[in-house]
Amino acid sequence: MITKSHCQTLDQNDALAPLRNEFDLPKNVTYLDGNSLGAQPKAALTRAQQVITQEWGQDLIRSWNSAGWFDMPSRLGDMLAPLIGANPAEVVVTDSTSVNLFKALAAALHLQAELHPHKKIIVSERSNFPTDLYMVQGLTQWLDRGYRLELVDSPEQLNSAINEHVAVALLTHVNYRTGEMLDMTSLTTHIHAQGALAIWDLCHSAGAVPVELNAANADFAIGCTYKYLNGGPGSPAFIWVAERHLAKFTHPLSGWWGHTAPFAMQPEFTPTASIRRALCGTQPMISLALVETGLAVFKKTSMTALREKSLALTDLFIQLVEQRCANHPLGLVTPRSHSKRGSHVSFTHPHAYPIIQALIERGIIGDYREPAVLRFGFTPLYTGFVDVWNAVEALRDILDTQAYQINATRHAVT
Amino acid sequence: MITKSHCQTLDQNDALAPLRNEFDLPKNVTYLDGNSLGAQPKAALTRAQQVITQEWGQDLIRSWNSAGWFDMPSRLGDMLAPLIGANPAEVVVTDSTSVNLFKALAAALHLQAELHPHKKIIVSERSNFPTDLYMVQGLTQWLDRGYRLELVDSPEQLNSAINEHVAVALLTHVNYRTGEMLDMTSLTTHIHAQGALAIWDLCHSAGAVPVELNAANADFAIGCTYKYLNGGPGSPAFIWVAERHLAKFTHPLSGWWGHTAPFAMQPEFTPTASIRRALCGTQPMISLALVETGLAVFKKTSMTALREKSLALTDLFIQLVEQRCANHPLGLVTPRSHSKRGSHVSFTHPHAYPIIQALIERGIIGDYREPAVLRFGFTPLYTGFVDVWNAVEALRDILDTQAYQINATRHAVT
Repeated sequence: MITKSHCQTLDQNDALAPLRNEFDLPKNVTYLDGNSLGAQPKAALTRAQQVITQEWGQDLIRSWNSAGWFDMPSRLGDMLAPLIGANPAEVVVTDSTSVNLFKALAAALHLQAELHPHKKIIVSERSNFPTDLYMVQGLTQWLDRGYRLELVDSPEQLNSAINEHVAVALLTHVNYRTGEMLDMTSLTTHIHAQGALAIWDLCHSAGAVPVELNAANADFAIGCTYKYLNGGPGSPAFIWVAERHLAKFTHPLSGWWGHTAPFAMQPEFTPTASIRRALCGTQPMISLALVETGLAVFKKTSMTALREKSLALTDLFIQLVEQRCANHPLGLVTPRSHSKRGSHVSFTHPHAYPIIQALIERGIIGDYREPAVLRFGFTPLYTGFVDVWNAVEALRDILDTQAYQINATRHAVT
Repeated sequence: MITKSHCQTLDQNDALAPLRNEFDLPKNVTYLDGNSLGAQPKAALTRAQQVITQEWGQDLIRSWNSAGWFDMPSRLGDMLAPLIGANPAEVVVTDSTSVNLFKALAAALHLQAELHPHKKIIVSERSNFPTDLYMVQGLTQWLDRGYRLELVDSPEQLNSAINEHVAVALLTHVNYRTGEMLDMTSLTTHIHAQGALAIWDLCHSAGAVPVELNAANADFAIGCTYKYLNGGPGSPAFIWVAERHLAKFTHPLSGWWGHTAPFAMQPEFTPTASIRRALCGTQPMISLALVETGLAVFKKTSMTALREKSLALTDLFIQLVEQRCANHPLGLVTPRSHSKRGSHVSFTHPHAYPIIQALIERGIIGDYREPAVLRFGFTPLYTGFVDVWNAVEALRDILDTQAYQINATRHAVT
């Protein structure tokens, strides 16, 4: 049986433990929801002050140049690139994940319409985060050219569903609900063998697990920066385009930031040759600037070290729940296999919602996901092994004492 | 001849003068570029601290509910509504102006495709801010259904260009370069008489001039919050949909924030009935929260009072330039008629670019716009009459002494 003292020893031997000091976390809280909203880097407030009082307040309009505001989407892309196995010239931070998905899907369909006009199917998973599916529906219904979204019910069905009729496979690398991680390399190989293009959603991957977009030969990727990358609430998302597709990357959100000469004020749109053609309109600079403080922390470690600790944390959590809550109807949703696991762990329980509420009241912040899922995110930058112990201990006590209101009303938790 | 002492008297009698204290402006700077980037409200830093340290840092994921993050696009829309003659239920603050224009145009074309499928022309002005034209090009080329953008060379040509073949007129209320204001009411009446729909771009109008969207019977409007509304660099934009169009407002950027039950995680998109169907993905909360500090200042005055002062400022500027720089080749671009003037004034000069650089070196911040235009914005919330005097005096001296480098290299100024 694992003991608390064992967890303490793990913390003492954890080379990443000092990184917790990079973040301001509330006292008396065990935060296991960094997969929904990452913690606040201590540098964020200072950076916001600098942008607000100096760059905006004092330097005003000049900061578009002098403070590098205009270049920030590319500069942040350069910082993000090594975390997702990308070249700096392939990624920008901008807009929302949904809007970036729209651009990537539009561009992918545009490419396929030239190469394989008969391919009309877009494959995804029914369990994908809904906004991805909504964006496909919005785009295809409106375009009205016979494109059809086909949803599979489990990852095992992907290989057969992705056949010669498929134009694009839109796959989320780590599932938001189950924590299951797909094999990006083998799936991308299969997708290409069928003449389709691969769009990868990295919302629960970037900063959470090693991602090698170029090694996997992926085509397009999108993702958010406010989960494991700690960019701040709703901070702008990213879009990645494989260099081989860049010259033909065409999407209808052709705003002035994607123009080859944005300040020449020409009435005709001519996209710039670089990844900045994925930009559209003027970006929210204060939110964008804080993404830098989140990304900067990653320079102090490596995705390899983070992955090792992430697996140790999720292994420990699964083991402790199974040891200490064995007599309760908890069902592990997340794969046990390391190669199929992201950085969060989900269990089902018939009373999942009130149990999460009871945990939150005790300062253990996980979250609830429909239907009946208790979800816990483990962010190796600031989660320790005793945190895992404390979370399981609170869960055990709540379950043992039934210290939850079965009839608690469900309400919105993002 | 107008004297500096006259300007001082105007400042002393200015009931709006105390509002300058709501903003942090640099010392020794006369800021006449609030039409590009509004000044920093003093409340911005405190609000940012609150969002970063308390809402993000301490309350974390709970702030989506407890701090009202999720509702913020609507709450800000409610605050903005009275400034543009809208009902609160008709406007949200979200995304960029370009992205919102895409939604509005897509929705307008969708409506027209049902009502008048033969109408294939979108009319705008060649002198419109380029991103508006780029977005039309992106959308129509991609949609490939025979829509065509027709550009007129002057506002006088609008009435004849907007004929029975026109589906949508996309008009900017106040031109970014010339400062000319269009007659929204009479143009919208004409647009409707031709069976077309009116999209109004209010980037240089919102907070600058009185706007009465509902009184003018407009259909859709978009605009930014970082100019006269002082929301911060690149702060999220707004989109307004006339209540009569709301039920049929359909656009392809159907992200989860526009869903009727965003947290039910259903795979099918069902748009909400409210104006929130104009939302798409997760919004950048820190930049969004600061929009509130900009809008709050407007509660201390009225658009009528602001308009009166704005016209007094621009009248004074034109008069002073014409009196004190009479022997220089300056050409007034902005209409003299009050009914056709926004809140900025532009003059041409063969050496406009180096002149603006020389002014900026002296702390008079206006900006340059292609081709050959000196542009000066007058924001009655924080610009005084002596500011106008000082600006013209610096301009006169620079012109009289030719204190500018004719060969100065042009570079990007947003």
